[in-house]
Amino acid sequence: MAGKEDLKLLGLLVSPFVIRVRMALSMKGLNYEYVEEDLFNKSELLLKLNPVHKKVPVLIHNGKPICESLVILQYVDELFTGRAILPTDPYERATARFWAAYIEDKLCPAWIGILKAKAEEERAEKVKETLAAIEHVEVAFAKCSNGNVFFGGDSIGYLDIVLGSFLFWFEALRRMYGLEIINTSKTPLLAAWAERFGGSVEAKEVVPEADKAVQYANKLHAAAAVKLVSSE
Amino acid sequence: MAGKEDLKLLGLLVSPFVIRVRMALSMKGLNYEYVEEDLFNKSELLLKLNPVHKKVPVLIHNGKPICESLVILQYVDELFTGRAILPTDPYERATARFWAAYIEDKLCPAWIGILKAKAEEERAEKVKETLAAIEHVEVAFAKCSNGNVFFGGDSIGYLDIVLGSFLFWFEALRRMYGLEIINTSKTPLLAAWAERFGGSVEAKEVVPEADKAVQYANKLHAAAAVKLVSSE
Repeated sequence: MAGKEDLKLLGLLVSPFVIRVRMALSMKGLNYEYVEEDLFNKSELLLKLNPVHKKVPVLIHNGKPICESLVILQYVDELFTGRAILPTDPYERATARFWAAYIEDKLCPAWIGILKAKAEEERAEKVKETLAAIEHVEVAFAKCSNGNVFFGGDSIGYLDIVLGSFLFWFEALRRMYGLEIINTSKTPLLAAWAERFGGSVEAKEVVPEADKAVQYANKLHAAAAVKLVSSE
Repeated sequence: MAGKEDLKLLGLLVSPFVIRVRMALSMKGLNYEYVEEDLFNKSELLLKLNPVHKKVPVLIHNGKPICESLVILQYVDELFTGRAILPTDPYERATARFWAAYIEDKLCPAWIGILKAKAEEERAEKVKETLAAIEHVEVAFAKCSNGNVFFGGDSIGYLDIVLGSFLFWFEALRRMYGLEIINTSKTPLLAAWAERFGGSVEAKEVVPEADKAVQYANKLHAAAAVKLVSSE
């Protein structure tokens, strides 16, 4: 099917959610037009195609939009041949979906909360939540990987993409706040996995340097400060 | 496959999330052992099988647990023959997953927030969020149903189950706070759909009377009051 499809992706280079989609498209060997969005000045196309959330990524397939990274990953996996993204066994697939939801609903708001926190106390609370969540994910790795090197077995799969997309942001948080979310003492399995993920061809293609995330965080903080001052 | 399977469900009669699973199992013609949990005194089995969230529903299939209602629905649909729960077309399936996530992430915390609110101001805020979210779902119904009577077409499907499981709680909120979340003026499509859903065989089998939800809410409020008093 690859090659004949009209695929366009509205994205943002530092968005983990966009990185997930780019990794999936790459794993399926699909070509696509990539359009960088400016989230400080969203395009008419983005607002039209994702009126509910007004967020990237939006994948446009033969003119039809698909939104939300986990939905897009499953769509791409179900529609296109090539390397499987989700596990093929139904029970393993259910387990992967369970942990993807956990990463999305618990881990993600926690670490993004560290960035968004307006006071030290709030930041400390979000750090605590992030570290508690990542310890659950450490246990998940042991269960899902079955002794293999990735969540997905011997190669990158759904959960590797879902969690791996956060890693350069975790490195940015280390540089900004000295925080080690994944480390060899508390989460040794994930620490080894993160090394492998970072060294993989799939990640190297689309994951930016952590500096880009630091720069984007500074831009967000500056914009929030301006907003605060102008609303006073 | 039905009949040979060992299926056990840890549930709670007034839980919308459990109702979803019971509807899905029923649509597949599957027999299962139902075990009512007491969430004020959770069983060892529940804590062992869902150590992360410690919540119902937990479906135990041939000894293996599956947690989280949306994950279970997809598992049941993928594994068992019988009536399809999710749409079969990949784009329609992506759309259904998008709206299921919206209902779960935006609508659900909003209406549960109405119940949990400790002050009138907080309750008013949650009412506002609930009404904003349901208006989005009204638009979703027009798109997903394609002029048919259910989200899933001419019979109940994934989104019907996901949203329909809330309806008796919406009725409970009407009785408790005079609040009409779905009504003929603002959400006429959903109002007509809710009538049809309530009258369906699938719903009648497992959806309790709204009074049961009111009673459970009173029990939760009483427990919260006791907790508040005892922590003073």
